[in-house]
Formats: sequence, structure tokens, C-alpha cells
Amino acid sequence: MPDLRRDPVTGRWVIIATERAQRPQDFIREPVRIKGSPQTCPFCPGNESKTPPEILAFRPDENGGSQPNAPGWNLRVVPNKYPALRVEGDLDRQAEGIYDRMNGVGAHEVIIESPEHTHTYATMPAKAIEDTLYAFRERVHDLKRDVRLKYVLLFKNHGEAAGATVEHTHSQLIALPIVPRQVVEELKGARDYYTLKERCIYCDMLRQETKDKSRLVQEMDGFVVIAPFAPRFPFETWIIPRKHDSAFENSPTEKFAELAKVIKTLAAKLDRVLDSPAYNLVFHSAPLYDQPSEHYHWHIEFMPKVTRVAGFEWGSGFYINPTTPEEAAKFLREAKVNGG
Amino acid sequence: MPDLRRDPVTGRWVIIATERAQRPQDFIREPVRIKGSPQTCPFCPGNESKTPPEILAFRPDENGGSQPNAPGWNLRVVPNKYPALRVEGDLDRQAEGIYDRMNGVGAHEVIIESPEHTHTYATMPAKAIEDTLYAFRERVHDLKRDVRLKYVLLFKNHGEAAGATVEHTHSQLIALPIVPRQVVEELKGARDYYTLKERCIYCDMLRQETKDKSRLVQEMDGFVVIAPFAPRFPFETWIIPRKHDSAFENSPTEKFAELAKVIKTLAAKLDRVLDSPAYNLVFHSAPLYDQPSEHYHWHIEFMPKVTRVAGFEWGSGFYINPTTPEEAAKFLREAKVNGG
Repeated sequence: MPDLRRDPVTGRWVIIATERAQRPQDFIREPVRIKGSPQTCPFCPGNESKTPPEILAFRPDENGGSQPNAPGWNLRVVPNKYPALRVEGDLDRQAEGIYDRMNGVGAHEVIIESPEHTHTYATMPAKAIEDTLYAFRERVHDLKRDVRLKYVLLFKNHGEAAGATVEHTHSQLIALPIVPRQVVEELKGARDYYTLKERCIYCDMLRQETKDKSRLVQEMDGFVVIAPFAPRFPFETWIIPRKHDSAFENSPTEKFAELAKVIKTLAAKLDRVLDSPAYNLVFHSAPLYDQPSEHYHWHIEFMPKVTRVAGFEWGSGFYINPTTPEEAAKFLREAKVNGG
Repeated sequence: MPDLRRDPVTGRWVIIATERAQRPQDFIREPVRIKGSPQTCPFCPGNESKTPPEILAFRPDENGGSQPNAPGWNLRVVPNKYPALRVEGDLDRQAEGIYDRMNGVGAHEVIIESPEHTHTYATMPAKAIEDTLYAFRERVHDLKRDVRLKYVLLFKNHGEAAGATVEHTHSQLIALPIVPRQVVEELKGARDYYTLKERCIYCDMLRQETKDKSRLVQEMDGFVVIAPFAPRFPFETWIIPRKHDSAFENSPTEKFAELAKVIKTLAAKLDRVLDSPAYNLVFHSAPLYDQPSEHYHWHIEFMPKVTRVAGFEWGSGFYINPTTPEEAAKFLREAKVNGG
């Protein structure tokens, strides 16, 4: 019998269609293989002039003499060359008959996470992922000073099937003048639960998942990795910090080294189980102007892209997932990788 | 400057990123080419035993002697062999700690729209599309009698990139024990607007679009085809009936012949402009138990799949669309096709 499951935060129902069950090896596959073309790659050292000038860069001390927009960096943050939003100008909110519009004011930045063209989260040193976390935090704190901006979305597209257009490892951030509706829904769901129970729903989820263990992928000192109860996609996986914090950028940085290891291990396990799938990784965090709250709990969602999203999903906001999270968690728990 | 636009019904914002503007010929292309394999195709005449027994079939009078589950049909409706939901059993709503689940009770049916393996909406006779509309209506009226079911979603996946797994032309219906959240949001937005204005928002949209004409694709006696003001996808196109009706299955059948022609013409125009794109087509209609309402207005949404949905969209429910609807409408208006 297929199973209908409700995400406890957003109220989104998904169909866990066990009758359509597939083993990991049955999925549509577009394995991500890094081809490597350093001569033309705009993110490779030596090609710094192919990106807009850098906003931020980490240059190791031993390369102390290295200049901005020149080789010698470990990580660079640059504006997106084809930005979805622009920093200049006023919002200029307007009606157009029954419709509403405003100028696309915001920021769209690229975090080039390593000088090595062939690196992926599964293969790069955890330190490079840790640097990305520091860069994220620094950029969010900087963008927060612009009062027009309400939300910063931090995300990574890995592989063409997940929307990546450059294969050299990078993440992105988009700063928006409005809070996206999916975030609004999560915040509302979490607030409603808190009103009812006076407890954070994510903290409750952590208690249940670490006790029940059937959807548990990995437990670390500061972070818990789970397959969520009502996943939209096969092998959807969440990384949740044990310590309650509503915003990533305010969370303790002494945990970033561990978080980087958790991300690396999860990426390696997904590569092992699903043969290097494309994936999206998205940070879910509170809006910029929110005070630290008791009800919201920041976390990271990993979404491998191994099935096609079809008309049913687009028309209904309802997802059909052929893999139970219990089965996905078991495969990921058992996948042997370095450090995992 | 990129443009932020708000869908007036759901409140969903999209970024019309004109700086990333692409001409139709620049899109990622996976043109849908029907290969044809009638010997093994489960939907071809002669292979009726490869599907579960038919629920409904249209057999022309001149084939008066043709038997159920044997050749001689124009259209067949069969249960999906790998159903996402099943008709048997009770909902059996349960808690699992903080989570909620129920049995996947519902229906999942396939409408085989033509005996011809190579037909598509753009190339098949409009009469075959009209038959599909009659079959949809008949199946909805039948499923309505099952009080466990709250909503029937009618949709078509065309091409592998849109999630189709069989290339022989077919649509699907999924009957659900809950109203999907995207439908709930549309209903709420339409109701809120009605409460404020005492007018249907879709009727207002029709008045503005037919007067303004910049997003108008085609005007017929009973239907208007527009590129919506805040489209999620390049060349997203809506077919809206002029006459206010909240549910497709209660709308006047004397308009079905015209609607079939409108669908065929739009499919042909998309094929012409975007080189036979994959697409999803979804009927948006009121829930089964709703009385006819003044505030909701059924319609059809066509979504060509020519760009990749990436982390930003999954994380935010916010869409970046590189094509303005005004430009898309102009291309579609000017595309010359038979009957268009």
C-alpha cells in the first residue's frame, strides 16, 4: 500500500509509492563526471579576469604576497556575471492593473570553493568546505547591512541535472528584497507548532529521530543527519545542528570544522550509493531582520536529482517518491567512505 | 534591470531576469522525437493485455463489434500499472510520534488518447483531444461518487524531460484523499480577492489581458490563451475559459471541440517556436466537494520544460525565468501553424 506522509513543518504531503519502489541502481542516471578544462574555465587560477572583480577572497599566509584578482587564493567570492538580481537602484514597487511588480534589487554572488578544477564536496579537503562556511557567514553579515534586503539564500547546484552551468566547484548566494514563500511557510509551520507545544519542532524531530534511528544517517557531536519523514525526493537528506539556533550566520563557528566534515561525508556517501548524482544543497535559515527565535531552527537540505519532476508535482505541489526514507537512510548509513 | 513580479492569485514572486535573456534558440534542448516501437508498446492496439483491464473506452460505431480490451478503440482509460495510489482500503490516519501519515488511497489512471503510436497533441486530429476531454469529464464524475476522494488532478507529461516514461500519447489522472496544497493556495488567493473586490480574479485577468494584448497569444470565442504576468518557466502559457466556471467537469461540453482546437494549436505553436519541447499540461479545477463558486475559475496551464530547475527554486519556491512573458507571447502569436 502506498503511504501518504505529511511534512510536520510545512504540511506538505508526499506519496511514498512503495509499489513503484526502485533500488538505487534503477534510477535515471546522469552521473556527474568532472571533465576538466582549466584553460577556459572562468573559475580556475589564472583566469581571474574572466569573472567580475572579487568581493572577498581567502589567501593563505604562505602566499602572503598574492594580489586581489590574481592566483594564490584558496577561495574567491565574485558577483555572478549573469545576475538574477542587481545591487543598484530602488525597489520602485508598482501596480500594473491588477498585477504587482518591483525592480529586481538584490545580490547574486558566486563562491568559488577551491582553486582545483576537479574538486567536489566528496573529494576536496574538508577545510575547503569549512572555508565556504566562513565565506557564507561573512557575506551574510555584510549583506545584512543593506536594509532593502530581507533574505539571503545560500545554495549549491552540483552537476548539470541540478542546474549547474560551470563544473568547477562553486556555491551561490542570492540576496532578496522579500522573504521567499517556502521560507515563510516553514517559519509559519514552526511558529504554529511552538504556539501549541512551546517547543521547537526541529528539536522534537531530533529527539524522535535519534531515538527511533530508522531514518538516522549519521550522528555527530554537533550535527545529526537524517532522511526526513516526508521527503520529496529519493535520498533527500537533512543536516540539522543539535544546538538550537534560528540563523546559520549566528551559529557557533567552532562547529564549522565538524559541519564541513559532515557535508563531505554525506556527499561521499551519496556518490557511493547513487553513482555520483547531481544534487542541490540549500541552507534553510531565518530572515535577516528576525531576532534569534525559539521556534525556528536552521538546517541544510541535500536533494539528489535522480528522478524527473513531472506534471503531477508541478500542478499540485505534491510529490511522488518511490524510495522510503527508511530505506534511503539504511543505504547511506551502511555506505563505507573515509571518515564516515 | 531584472523584474520581480508577483502572481496575483498565489502571491508567488518570480524573477524575470532579462539580463540573462535568451532567445528561444538558446535554450537547453531535448526535442521530443517519437521513435515508434509499436510491437512492444503497451499502449498500441493489439497489446491491450499489457495494461490492466480498461475502465472506459471509446469505440467508434463503425467498429461496433469491437470487444473490450481488444483493438478497435479510439481511446482507452486503464489503471496505471505502477500506481502512486490504490483504490482499495481505508485511509487509516495515524500518528507516528510527531508525524502524520495515512494509507495511499486514491486512483491513478492513464488515458491512452489515440491508437496511433506517433500522434502528439500538435499532430493528432483535434477530435482525439476532444475525446480526451470527454473521458476526463466522465472519469471525474465517476470518481466523485467515492466520498474518500477530495480532488482529481488531470495532467499530461509530454516527453522524457517532462517525466513521460511511455512515448505513446497519453494523459493521466490522480484522484487524491486530500486537496493538494498548491490548489489550496490558489483557492485561498482567489477567495481573498473575491472578498475584497467581489469579482473573480481570473475574470479580471481576462479583461486586462484581452485589452492590453501584450501577453495575449490567441483569442477564441470561448477561450483566451495568455502568457501569465508572473510565469515560473519560459513560455509558460495558460488557457482560460471566458465563461466563469469553477470546475472543468461542470463546464459546457459544447465548448470542448473548440478547447481541443485551442490545445492542438498551442502545442503546434510551442513545437514550432521551441523545436518540439517536452511539456507538462495541468488542469487547475475546484475540489470535488466544492459547490460551484463565484471566486474560482478553472483553467489549463502549459509548462514547456526548456530550462533546469535548480537549488534556488527548490530552496525558495521562487523562480528565475530568463524570458519575459511579453516576448514569449509575441513569438507564440506570430508562429504560423495550421488553424492558428
